[in-house]
Amino acid sequence: MRQVFQEQLHEVQERLVEIAGDATQIMKHASDAFNNSNVVLADQAIASAELVNEKALALDELVIRILAKQSPVARDLRILVSALRISASLERMAALAGHIAQIARYRYPGSAIPEALKGTFAEMGALDYELGKKVVKLLGNTDVDLARSIQAEDARVDELHRHVFDTVLDDNWKENAMFTVDVTLASRYHERFADHVVDISAKVSYLTTGEWNDVE
Amino acid sequence: MRQVFQEQLHEVQERLVEIAGDATQIMKHASDAFNNSNVVLADQAIASAELVNEKALALDELVIRILAKQSPVARDLRILVSALRISASLERMAALAGHIAQIARYRYPGSAIPEALKGTFAEMGALDYELGKKVVKLLGNTDVDLARSIQAEDARVDELHRHVFDTVLDDNWKENAMFTVDVTLASRYHERFADHVVDISAKVSYLTTGEWNDVE
Repeated sequence: MRQVFQEQLHEVQERLVEIAGDATQIMKHASDAFNNSNVVLADQAIASAELVNEKALALDELVIRILAKQSPVARDLRILVSALRISASLERMAALAGHIAQIARYRYPGSAIPEALKGTFAEMGALDYELGKKVVKLLGNTDVDLARSIQAEDARVDELHRHVFDTVLDDNWKENAMFTVDVTLASRYHERFADHVVDISAKVSYLTTGEWNDVE
Repeated sequence: MRQVFQEQLHEVQERLVEIAGDATQIMKHASDAFNNSNVVLADQAIASAELVNEKALALDELVIRILAKQSPVARDLRILVSALRISASLERMAALAGHIAQIARYRYPGSAIPEALKGTFAEMGALDYELGKKVVKLLGNTDVDLARSIQAEDARVDELHRHVFDTVLDDNWKENAMFTVDVTLASRYHERFADHVVDISAKVSYLTTGEWNDVE
């Protein structure tokens, strides 16, 4: 029974790692699409975000089946409940990246980013991509201690998010309302993506070390 | 055992209804604060959103304890997993309302809404408040069939959300970037609030009728 349960936990972990990889790749495509007005990547990101949604639903069903069959308690139960929450966060991350790609799509062949903010969004996108890769690592192996670097990168994303507002609200900002709307929303999506990474990191930390890792 | 379980389910349901009531009240205060530049209501909304966060966490702990002690299966298990998800949605709804209040706070004593959009936001806020009240009803008694009216109201919120963008992106829009940023984000928050209501309604419908209701 224990053996079967460990195999099932392993399956849950593998699927979470896979979905985290998908969400990360979607952010990479969305960011490239947004920063370089690449409509092909934008479409890929949007389509992939839909798939992540399905994968997350399938994972949730698996978790519910395990809960029903194994009636886990204590840490095992917490791992499974955390898996449900992490799956929800990953699905949101993919959706947020999809929204960024959607903005790039709407403005194509034009750019959604005025010159003054190109560097800011390039950095934000790169940070979100890095954060996504850290989630993949964290879910694959809870022994790694990434909490601090995740917090530092999230703080930097928040800083860039504020910089976007400062830029837009400055007297020198002469761009039209379309740019203002696009960068406001895109900045918010980048910031929320990073927030979800922090949430996931907190959940994995909470499970400390041990069984979650032992499923290998 | 069954008796105890039913009492515990009832407790979960009561707490969900309470948190839904809180989130709804926060949206009411936030909307009034945002539409009428009322800083007292804004502060109340922001403080209450924090409390909802704590209540949602406490509810999640209760659900996990019930899962551990009762090892429910089938519908009972699904009800509890749904309760976790509904709790997460309610927490987000309160947070989104808090963000709206925050914008009102930042702009006080000025208004965050230019004249041209006052009616739109008044209607959006009223719809979100109505939607919140429907969630309270739905969670208190799954026999009520509110799915259709919830969908209609959500569709109207989406329409108003698009109207905000159309207004802002129109050549006649001469407001400064601060207004543009504020209304863009506020509109997004209103729209997401309604989305969560639709999600909750779908989860309650999914549980069809029966036990969830029988906990009375």
